[in-house]
Amino acid sequence: MAGRTARARVTRVRADSSGASEQADVLAAEEPLGIRIDGQAVSLTMRTPGDDLDLAAGFLLSEGIVASPADIASMRVCDGQRCGHDHAGPDEAMGNIVDIALRPGLTVRPGLGRAFLTSSACGVCGKASIEDLHVPGRFDLFKDPVEVPADVLAALPDTLRRAQRVFERTGGLHAAGLFSAAGELLVVREDVGRHNAVDKVIGWALQADLLPLGGRIILVSGRASFELVQKAVVAGIPVLAAISAPSSLAARLAADAGLTLVGFLRGGSMNVYSGIERISVLR
Amino acid sequence: MAGRTARARVTRVRADSSGASEQADVLAAEEPLGIRIDGQAVSLTMRTPGDDLDLAAGFLLSEGIVASPADIASMRVCDGQRCGHDHAGPDEAMGNIVDIALRPGLTVRPGLGRAFLTSSACGVCGKASIEDLHVPGRFDLFKDPVEVPADVLAALPDTLRRAQRVFERTGGLHAAGLFSAAGELLVVREDVGRHNAVDKVIGWALQADLLPLGGRIILVSGRASFELVQKAVVAGIPVLAAISAPSSLAARLAADAGLTLVGFLRGGSMNVYSGIERISVLR
Repeated sequence: MAGRTARARVTRVRADSSGASEQADVLAAEEPLGIRIDGQAVSLTMRTPGDDLDLAAGFLLSEGIVASPADIASMRVCDGQRCGHDHAGPDEAMGNIVDIALRPGLTVRPGLGRAFLTSSACGVCGKASIEDLHVPGRFDLFKDPVEVPADVLAALPDTLRRAQRVFERTGGLHAAGLFSAAGELLVVREDVGRHNAVDKVIGWALQADLLPLGGRIILVSGRASFELVQKAVVAGIPVLAAISAPSSLAARLAADAGLTLVGFLRGGSMNVYSGIERISVLR
Repeated sequence: MAGRTARARVTRVRADSSGASEQADVLAAEEPLGIRIDGQAVSLTMRTPGDDLDLAAGFLLSEGIVASPADIASMRVCDGQRCGHDHAGPDEAMGNIVDIALRPGLTVRPGLGRAFLTSSACGVCGKASIEDLHVPGRFDLFKDPVEVPADVLAALPDTLRRAQRVFERTGGLHAAGLFSAAGELLVVREDVGRHNAVDKVIGWALQADLLPLGGRIILVSGRASFELVQKAVVAGIPVLAAISAPSSLAARLAADAGLTLVGFLRGGSMNVYSGIERISVLR
């Protein structure tokens, strides 16, 4: 498997001096990952290597292809092995292919095939029309009674940052962390694409048979887009918090789905766009 | 056309007090945009409305579908009109479809069709294999002799930020700005997806028949991914600067293509990953 970071030579320049020093630097790795289902190439995403099976499982869940771990018969990284294909290409040799077999009787929807190509932040790929964008969640978030103290939420960003191993060295990664309502960090995943970081978290949970993630909080290091709200809903997570701003469509979908959406979670304060009833404040 | 921002009600909560105040907020708008070429739906991207023709033109350029403005016979937003289709759907009524006719004889590559679906940060969609990821540029950046003083580069982020009209109100948008080598801002575009902001800039330039953008600098507000490097190369821009970190693949492609890649451009300093010969420092 390719590494999560890559070494680079960099020239450090200061505008106000004549000094320019060459030094070693560490970059967040970005490599393509191909996902094959039953031998068919269905997705190509740019991602940071690592937790690739979590990423693949999260992709399957996000796209409505699977709903439980039993839907996945097998899943493996083609790491220099043939993976049942005619030949091992360089991508397989580099561990940049995940090969999935679904349980008998389950298939990807017809014509998906090559249409299902994604990038490091692509959660709407494979949708043929605007109407197809909304993947309905199986779980009813409105029924989740969890209540989270505002001070617990306010402490999450520091916890997430401390757990980001790669970001510390590269400054180049998004992170997603799954927390209990008491603020306990359950899992953290990093990626150059924020959407991949969330897929890795929910894919981890799918494989551990933890869905729906009722009573949990997911925190993302950047902004909250429509796609991230969609992924939280599909995994049954009642609270999505973001360090930065949500988009208009994120706020609209969150309200429609019964998700508590928190933005600008920083410096001890936050903006709550929907589901305020789940946030309890000091009395 | 839908607006660039959307109004929302938000509850502002502070963790250390019992106060929670409801107030009006402004969010960066995120809406789907469908791109049709000669009547065929080829792309669906989440974007911030505005400059949609720039975005569509930049998409065509980035994907190697067109190379000059003459390749585009016509391009229009389906704004409640029928656009020559059987019926006007709600997306057309909302101005969320761009309809393009290519010049006679030019077609999208066979089988592209529904495979070409993108998200707000999806520049690799439509690529069927990892080998297809690299879109070769027509312009030889190695031949671009431009030299940029380090202090000019250091001043660009402030200029870009001052020009970001929507970010100021929402905190939720990426920006890309095109500059002369003397630091003059030529155009700025904003979007929820950084990849779209860059497509809007190079699409603006394509329509103005300004390609290749020799001697120019493009500055992006966030990180530099592989996709952004690719777009700069395709537009013939010799210098790409980013406020934050580049990825490993971005640095590799930049070096291969002769692009000067600058990262962590902030506080008067910068990291130069490739093409240092174009950066001049004080003597």
